[in-house]
Parts: sequence; structure tokens; C-alpha cells
Amino acid sequence: MQSIDFYRKEFISYLGNKTIDREPQNLYAPISYILGLGGKRLRPVLTLVATEVFGKDYNKALDAALAIEIFHNFSLVHDDIMDDAPLRRGKATVHEKWDVNTGILSGDAMLITAYQLFENYPSDIFKDLAKLFSETALKVCEGQQYDIDFESRDDVTLSEYLTMIEYKTAVLIAAALKMGGIVAGADQSDQNEIYRFGLNLGIAFQLQDDYLDAFGDPETFGKQVGGDIIENKKTYLYLNVLLHGTAQQKKELLDLFSIQPKDPSAKIATIKDIFKESGSAQRTQSAIFDYSNRAFAILDKLKISADNKSLLRSFGESLMVRKV
Amino acid sequence: MQSIDFYRKEFISYLGNKTIDREPQNLYAPISYILGLGGKRLRPVLTLVATEVFGKDYNKALDAALAIEIFHNFSLVHDDIMDDAPLRRGKATVHEKWDVNTGILSGDAMLITAYQLFENYPSDIFKDLAKLFSETALKVCEGQQYDIDFESRDDVTLSEYLTMIEYKTAVLIAAALKMGGIVAGADQSDQNEIYRFGLNLGIAFQLQDDYLDAFGDPETFGKQVGGDIIENKKTYLYLNVLLHGTAQQKKELLDLFSIQPKDPSAKIATIKDIFKESGSAQRTQSAIFDYSNRAFAILDKLKISADNKSLLRSFGESLMVRKV
Repeated sequence: MQSIDFYRKEFISYLGNKTIDREPQNLYAPISYILGLGGKRLRPVLTLVATEVFGKDYNKALDAALAIEIFHNFSLVHDDIMDDAPLRRGKATVHEKWDVNTGILSGDAMLITAYQLFENYPSDIFKDLAKLFSETALKVCEGQQYDIDFESRDDVTLSEYLTMIEYKTAVLIAAALKMGGIVAGADQSDQNEIYRFGLNLGIAFQLQDDYLDAFGDPETFGKQVGGDIIENKKTYLYLNVLLHGTAQQKKELLDLFSIQPKDPSAKIATIKDIFKESGSAQRTQSAIFDYSNRAFAILDKLKISADNKSLLRSFGESLMVRKV
Repeated sequence: MQSIDFYRKEFISYLGNKTIDREPQNLYAPISYILGLGGKRLRPVLTLVATEVFGKDYNKALDAALAIEIFHNFSLVHDDIMDDAPLRRGKATVHEKWDVNTGILSGDAMLITAYQLFENYPSDIFKDLAKLFSETALKVCEGQQYDIDFESRDDVTLSEYLTMIEYKTAVLIAAALKMGGIVAGADQSDQNEIYRFGLNLGIAFQLQDDYLDAFGDPETFGKQVGGDIIENKKTYLYLNVLLHGTAQQKKELLDLFSIQPKDPSAKIATIKDIFKESGSAQRTQSAIFDYSNRAFAILDKLKISADNKSLLRSFGESLMVRKV
């Protein structure tokens, strides 16, 4: 078993060799562009690691890992159009660099290309991978739709919010791990458990993203601290104030979430105070802790070596201690 | 063997029962809407007919047929956004009735749903169907990209144009037929021949669409006669004038294709005259005739009964005598 960094490098080198240089250029150049923008390559690395953990050579999982990474980037290209986002990883988004139509069509081609990457596997494995992929991809679309719907609703419950982040973020992390299990021929119960490990870790990961967006260190947090507050996003922190805050805290929060001041620094500072004083920050940290622990508890059920369990555990922990 | 109308009705009734009534509504309602707008259901009917022609019950092919129809409608939803089209089958397009983001996301969900429809087939058939589907879907994207690219190019060759309509239109008709062959377990050579039959028929079909757009009967042609001329589309008729017309005809065509008069009737009339006098109309009819004949010649090679050959032939002919 190698280090996470090893798998990341192997994946990046595989990705580099696979770059699609095909006609028509205007369809395929945006695909190479977005795939070349970098990122942590977290999801494909999970597929490779899971394959090794279940006793097969990670090389067998490179195509499945690439399918996951291409799907993830497909969803970024289409989401960036929907969010009208100008930048992705500090560079122009596809629809900014080309145009919206190019973003739509290249995204479509990426989704199809992801399915094609399973074709090198035997029929049974092909079917298992494609089924899991379709189920996951559809949930990601549903999660994105819930996220859009929530923007114009003021009665979003905590449970609806958790479903949204499960679909939008966690299922892909879970599926990335399970694909490693499928490629390695792990038994059904192990496949299901590693999926549940990924699902809980993915929810913890997204809740931590909500938390760090307000309380992260501007030096190390990848995005603008306070970004969710500026955009009036109904995150876990926000919803918990509405559930458990005082009448005064709720009113102040709702008032501040109805305005978009040019200089948002005072708004950000006040809302962070509300998050803390209402107990919402603390509740969010507890939830992160609970979901992480639930994930780590599932590891015990896997029929893999103790060494491999600690590896998955430390990989999970490394995700959860980032950027604080 | 039943009539084409029988298969169409069976398909429509299957589609009606399958309508997706799921949450989130804003993702799935547009899918039911576009699938409910009607249309000739040509492609799914081809899948059902091909299945019967190769000796299996069409009921086995209903899911594959539905996948083809959902994919076709997915491409309409995304193309309508790209073309900024307000109407589809006389009704508001999805992005008009909802918005562009809904059109993008519902389209994505349709593409994924199409793949899921193959999951009821055994692994081997599943893989054959999904592979053919991916290859076809990617070509449709490439055809759409070429179509967009051609708008801003003035050096498009006839051969590039034929590739574009092959990808954008003909491969899906070919794949619809071949899927029937796959579901029925036809041998590889029959699968390939029925694909080639569909490909040639599909090209003839699209060339006839070009022809009818200028010379069709306004009473029976589904779209606005002269629509391609109004939009300055570089169709087979247009490209043939540039290849074979006199210097005077070419100049007049290029001049007229650089303007967009409020009342296009004089422009349409003059261009139709150029199409006729340059021999372009005649050449287009010859090409339609050639591609149809090539398609019908392929039928002879299929290892199916003479009755089934005439059925496919008359189905093909019924497509080619429409709306003139």
C-alpha cells in the first residue's frame, strides 16, 4: 500500500495520457481545459485506494477513477453555468472562456465519455459500475435541483438540507469508494459498507465546508471566507439558528440575510457572532464529529486488514482536519 | 407482424405508464412535459419493428425504445437552449416554460435516465446497448458542434456537411434499428447491415428535409417553408450552388445570404429560383434517391424473410414520401 500522494500522482499521469485530442476541437478542447485545471483529485484517489484495500491492483481501477473525475468535472461545468460563476480554481469557467452553448454541449459529451470509460471492464462489472454511476449521477442532479429550489424557499428543514448535501456531494464520494470495491470484486456487504463509510464521511466533509466558510482561516481555506454569508446561503449554520436561536437572534439573522451590502464585513462579523451565541457553531461541530465517527465506526465491519482500516481512517481524518 | 401504427400506439401507451412522477418536481416535471409533447415517435418505433423483424417479441424492446426516445428529447431540450428556440411542436420549449437552468439540469437527468432503461437487460445485452448508445450519443454531440461551427465558416465542403447530418441525425436512426437487433439477438452481420440501412435512410431523410424546407407544400410540411433560407442555413441545396452554379448565381446567393429582410418572401422566391436554375434542386433530389436506394439495397443482405424485407422497405418508403 502506497501513500495517498502516490495514487494522486499515478492518477494525474494517467489523466495526462488520456487527454482527448479529437475533432471537433470546439467540443473537446473545453474538456481538456477543465480536466487540466487541477484540484485535489480526491474522488478518483478514493477509487484507487478502495481497490487496493480490497486486494486488487489500483491499475485496474484507473478507468473507473477517471470516469468519476470526468463526471465530477461535468457537474462543475454545468453548475457553473447555472450559478453564473466566472471563476473555477482561479481560472475562467468554461462558459466564460468559450460560451454557454459550449459549456452545455461539452458537459454533455463529458457525461457520455464517463460511461464509455467502463467499457474496458467485463460485462458483469461494466453493468455494476454503470448502474451505480447512473444512480449516483441522477442523485447529484436531484441534489443540485434541491439546492436551487431552497434558494427561493424559507421553510427548508434541517432534514431536507441534509438530504440535499447527501445527494449533491456525499453520494459521489460514496460511489467513488464503492467502485473500487466493484473493480476489486469485493463482496456485496463490503461494497455496501464502504459506500456507507463514504456517505457519512461526505456529509461530514460538506458540513465542515459550511463551518469553514464562516470560521475557516482565510490563509488556508480555499474559497473566500464568508462567501456563503455574502450569498445568503441557507447552510447548516443558518438553519440551526432558526431552529434553536432566540427570537432576537432569528430576527437579526433574517434581516441580515435579506440585504446585500457593498462592504459585507460588518454583516459577516455580526452573523458569525449569531452563529456562535445561538449555539449553532457548536451544533455544527457536533454534527461533523458525529458523521465522522459514524463513518469510522463502519470501517470496523469491513473484511479487510487492520492496516487497511487505519489507512482509510487516516485518509478520512486527513480530509477532516484540512484548512481549519 | 403488425402495422407501424400498432407499434406507435403500443409505444405511446408504454411511455404513458412510465411517466416519471418523482421529487424534486422541478427536475422531473419538465421531462414529463417534453415527452408528452408528441411527435411521430419514429425512432422508438424503429427499435420495436427491428426487434420483430429479427424474430423476437417487441415487448422485450420497449425499454430500449424508450431510452432512444428519451435521448432524442434530451437532445431537443439542450439544442433548443443553444438555438434560443421559443417553440417545439407548437408549444413552449422547456427553457421558455421554465428557465435555462431547468432545461440544462432536466436534460442531464434525461440522458442518465436513458442509460438506466437498459438495466433490465442481462449484462451482455446491457453492455452492447450501452456501448452503442454512448457511441451514438457522442456522435450526436459532435454533429451538433459541427452544425454550430459551420454557421461561422464559409468554406464548408459537401463532404463535411454530409458528415454533420450523418452524426446529428442519421446515427440515431441507425442505432434505433440496431438496438432492435441487439435485443433480438440478431447476429453481428445483421446488426451491422441494419445499422447501415438506417444510416443511409437517415441521410436521405435529412437531405429530404433540406429539400422540403425550400420546395415542400406549406400545407403538409410540418415547419415553416423557407425557414432555412430565412436563417441563412448552409444546407445541401446551398452548398451545391457554390459548387456547381455560375459565378452570377453564386454571387447572388452569397449576397442574399448576407441579409435578413423583414419580409423574406422575395428573398425566398429568388433563392428557390437559384436552387432550380443552378441544378442544385435536381442534384439534391438525386442524392436523396441515391441514399434511399443504397439503404434499400442493403436490405437484401439481411437474413430475414422476404415479407420482413418488404415491410422495412415500405416503412422506409413511407418516410421518404412524406410531406412532398
